Amino acid sequence: MKEDLLKLIDILGTITFSISGVFAAMQKRLDIFGILIISFITSIGGGTLRDVLLGDLPVKWMRDIETPLIILVSAICAILFRHIIKNFQQTLFIFDSLGLGFFTVLGIQKGIKFGLNPGICVVLGTVTGCFGGVIRDILLNNIPLIFRREIYATACILGGIIYFILFQTHFPKEWLDVTVMLVVFMIRFLAVRYKLEMPDLYSEDKKGRP
Amino acid sequence: MKEDLLKLIDILGTITFSISGVFAAMQKRLDIFGILIISFITSIGGGTLRDVLLGDLPVKWMRDIETPLIILVSAICAILFRHIIKNFQQTLFIFDSLGLGFFTVLGIQKGIKFGLNPGICVVLGTVTGCFGGVIRDILLNNIPLIFRREIYATACILGGIIYFILFQTHFPKEWLDVTVMLVVFMIRFLAVRYKLEMPDLYSEDKKGRP
Amino acid sequence: MKEDLLKLIDILGTITFSISGVFAAMQKRLDIFGILIISFITSIGGGTLRDVLLGDLPVKWMRDIETPLIILVSAICAILFRHIIKNFQQTLFIFDSLGLGFFTVLGIQKGIKFGLNPGICVVLGTVTGCFGGVIRDILLNNIPLIFRREIYATACILGGIIYFILFQTHFPKEWLDVTVMLVVFMIRFLAVRYKLEMPDLYSEDKKGRP
Repeated sequence: MKEDLLKLIDILGTITFSISGVFAAMQKRLDIFGILIISFITSIGGGTLRDVLLGDLPVKWMRDIETPLIILVSAICAILFRHIIKNFQQTLFIFDSLGLGFFTVLGIQKGIKFGLNPGICVVLGTVTGCFGGVIRDILLNNIPLIFRREIYATACILGGIIYFILFQTHFPKEWLDVTVMLVVFMIRFLAVRYKLEMPDLYSEDKKGRP
Repeated sequence: MKEDLLKLIDILGTITFSISGVFAAMQKRLDIFGILIISFITSIGGGTLRDVLLGDLPVKWMRDIETPLIILVSAICAILFRHIIKNFQQTLFIFDSLGLGFFTVLGIQKGIKFGLNPGICVVLGTVTGCFGGVIRDILLNNIPLIFRREIYATACILGGIIYFILFQTHFPKEWLDVTVMLVVFMIRFLAVRYKLEMPDLYSEDKKGRP
Repeated sequence: MKEDLLKLIDILGTITFSISGVFAAMQKRLDIFGILIISFITSIGGGTLRDVLLGDLPVKWMRDIETPLIILVSAICAILFRHIIKNFQQTLFIFDSLGLGFFTVLGIQKGIKFGLNPGICVVLGTVTGCFGGVIRDILLNNIPLIFRREIYATACILGGIIYFILFQTHFPKEWLDVTVMLVVFMIRFLAVRYKLEMPDLYSEDKKGRP
């Protein structure tokens, strides 16, 4: 049952990441194949970079046609029904935050499987969760959003640290993944809900800001 | 004889891709080594990304000094004779389109050799054909050209789909590669000749376009 | 003793590269985690790209927690003491140039260890020395600095060529690495000191320049 739930979150995360790619690409007025490529890269970019760095190749989505198909179908639906989907921003945001938590945990666990240091596992979790969006923003010639003051990569990093703190305690191992996923989700959710931002390092010269 | 022809197209494709890198880099006024690096990356970028994703490492151009040398020589010639070469735009465009077809087929065949799903092979063909140019545009801080409405990635994707349709029929296997190469070439050639573009998804708000 | 010296230069290079990442990220007003990520990528980006292209995976910094820790500590110090560090530009520049030389030699030697052609080894040296900065600039949406007319990649390439010229002579092998490191350092140092630049390919239309 837990397996089914995680599978569902994986799929929902993949779908919302691909939809976020579609919307970002349409803002830059790309053509239909450009949109599909950006959607695909947003969805699989983080996991791909993680697997390349680990040397776990060919990358996962090449050996498993299911994920590319899910992305393709959801991207086409997002293009067709873009005017309707825009009304479900709140729902998409919740799925996106769940996906962020799920992919972060996935990256951490893969690092553990490869016998890597906890610090590196946190990096891998952050890469898996965030770098699809980073590559999307680079391709669209934007400064990657996660480097802005929003709590995004921060949620992954904090989640990763909490993972290894709980790991040291008597916390039941079988609930570790779901718990950390929800922690990342909650950090991200509360940050957006209450407009939390990272502290501004530049406040001293704020008046000069354009 | 067919082998010689394919080898020739490989070299012509490599050369034109490297020349396109030189011209793009000079538009941004890079220095001589910057131009050489961009030229090199434009030429080998697509195949490199494909091999990294597949885990076929070290990447091919490291084990075969011939390709880097061809790129180096053609890039230097392109810089020296840039005022002459500009008069051969039409010839360059034909070589470039042939190269696009050739590299697409190369990527597809490599995917088949790795036992991957046809859909993934089409992706690999598109990556091999197009992503040298994508990385070039990222490095030069442009939005990648292929994401614009021109028929470019589209030609690779359609070529890839036709490859697997013909593969299912009684079409002679030994002509499959040349045929699909010419199909990609023709799609690209006709698209530019008759100014075909991908359908405009944004027509409804076209008047507001700057 | 030589080993200790090289180790020290490795650490100094890592530190100055990470500081240069911090300053570049702060110019774009990134948040604290954004700065740390850019700092990390500037420091390990070149070696990571080299190892990915070679297939020497998982990349080195994943198996060795020391480097990430050095980067983390020096980045945090750079953020905290940014007003003080700014007064040591000259010192930082010397460390940075030493690091450039060190990482170039590291890349060349790794290429030799993999049995690659001298030309490819020079490419690997240049990638190791320069591409951390290139990836930093891409992420920050700048045109990579090394493609500008400054002598930077040029120093790596010349150093690499000198490496293999000396390699053919009776030059003592045990001093090859230190010598080439100092050559790269001197080229870079003198170029900045005497404001040397690559020849301007575009002088004919210079008047039209903005």
